[in-house]
Amino acid sequence: MTQKSKVPDISITRLFIYLRTLKNFEKNGLSTVSSEKLAERIGFNPHQVRKDLSYFGQFGRRGIGYEICQLNKAITEILGLNRRRKMAICGIGNLGSALFAYKGFKEQGFDIVALFDRDRKKIGQILDKIEIKDNNDIEEIVKKKGVEIAVIAVPVNSAQEVVDKFIKAGVKTLLNFTPTKLNVPSDVKLRNVDLSVELVNLSHYLYENQNKSKI
Amino acid sequence: MTQKSKVPDISITRLFIYLRTLKNFEKNGLSTVSSEKLAERIGFNPHQVRKDLSYFGQFGRRGIGYEICQLNKAITEILGLNRRRKMAICGIGNLGSALFAYKGFKEQGFDIVALFDRDRKKIGQILDKIEIKDNNDIEEIVKKKGVEIAVIAVPVNSAQEVVDKFIKAGVKTLLNFTPTKLNVPSDVKLRNVDLSVELVNLSHYLYENQNKSKI
Repeated sequence: MTQKSKVPDISITRLFIYLRTLKNFEKNGLSTVSSEKLAERIGFNPHQVRKDLSYFGQFGRRGIGYEICQLNKAITEILGLNRRRKMAICGIGNLGSALFAYKGFKEQGFDIVALFDRDRKKIGQILDKIEIKDNNDIEEIVKKKGVEIAVIAVPVNSAQEVVDKFIKAGVKTLLNFTPTKLNVPSDVKLRNVDLSVELVNLSHYLYENQNKSKI
Repeated sequence: MTQKSKVPDISITRLFIYLRTLKNFEKNGLSTVSSEKLAERIGFNPHQVRKDLSYFGQFGRRGIGYEICQLNKAITEILGLNRRRKMAICGIGNLGSALFAYKGFKEQGFDIVALFDRDRKKIGQILDKIEIKDNNDIEEIVKKKGVEIAVIAVPVNSAQEVVDKFIKAGVKTLLNFTPTKLNVPSDVKLRNVDLSVELVNLSHYLYENQNKSKI
């Protein structure tokens, strides 16, 4: 199946939620499910569910619903989850090390195959069979190991520089944990995760709440 | 200053970006800045900047711009960043441990003061001077230590249960890393971080890209 139109990120996110839910239904012995039931389980409205699934053709049949097995297979393919992906982490500080230690990536089909840092003291160290390489070797290693996704966990002031190196090496997808705005060409997909933004939102809420209770 | 209207999350996020940028300006010796210059540095439009700052009254003066020091102080207060916040992590698996090891929280004023798990083998272990407590002790410990923010990193099937315990203990702000939809009362603020959703978005992009290049 070839995509003609670009599917919005939010639909991709919802598709992934459908996939998780459908896998649970399947585990419980169900073979078909209606959009109503799927929607109800997740807390979405059925119209939204049908609309999202319609991006990818007709999997549902009136009165029967969706064939779970067939739908799972299609969503898995669409999400690119039918093969493993090779990732690199750049910046092996607190956050980079924490991300490397997190086993959730591997469980979901994302293998960390390369580590980079600019710190002479870290370069050459081996973490779980992977040698930390110099940022200057990004292009060589990325090509050699077939890295497809780069995780950026470097300090703000060197983020753009390492991103440029990954892009030069042909990497098209980046997950940025550095709290800064990065420039990438239009054919490169960048997603940002900023834990401090999350905390600040909570902190503001506490501030508002505490001020309210003082009134 | 008391908030009358609720400020949208996205404005809070932008305010935090302004604060970071203003601190850099300050470090470089600037004492005032125009909305145009602030906007340009971040890549926003000046109208947006002025609109966001207008939620909090008038800090700007025509022809002079914003007093950086005064604006920093006001944003810091509004974001609730003028005091430290106590956090608990529930679920000391791969992700929970990684989050505990991540020093970025402390640097930004968020202190992890309590750890919880339901696994008998983990309960009683001491990580960096903090003893892992039983999930059943959440209420007691949260009240004793004054926990304000709960970080949820447990398996999906026990997430709602521990969230309910934190809420019963009076916690009003939660940061959820568990990939599931959680129900919280309207006076509780929940933020979700789902790393696998980020990766799936990238993976879908790779799928689309690879299919395109086959045509």
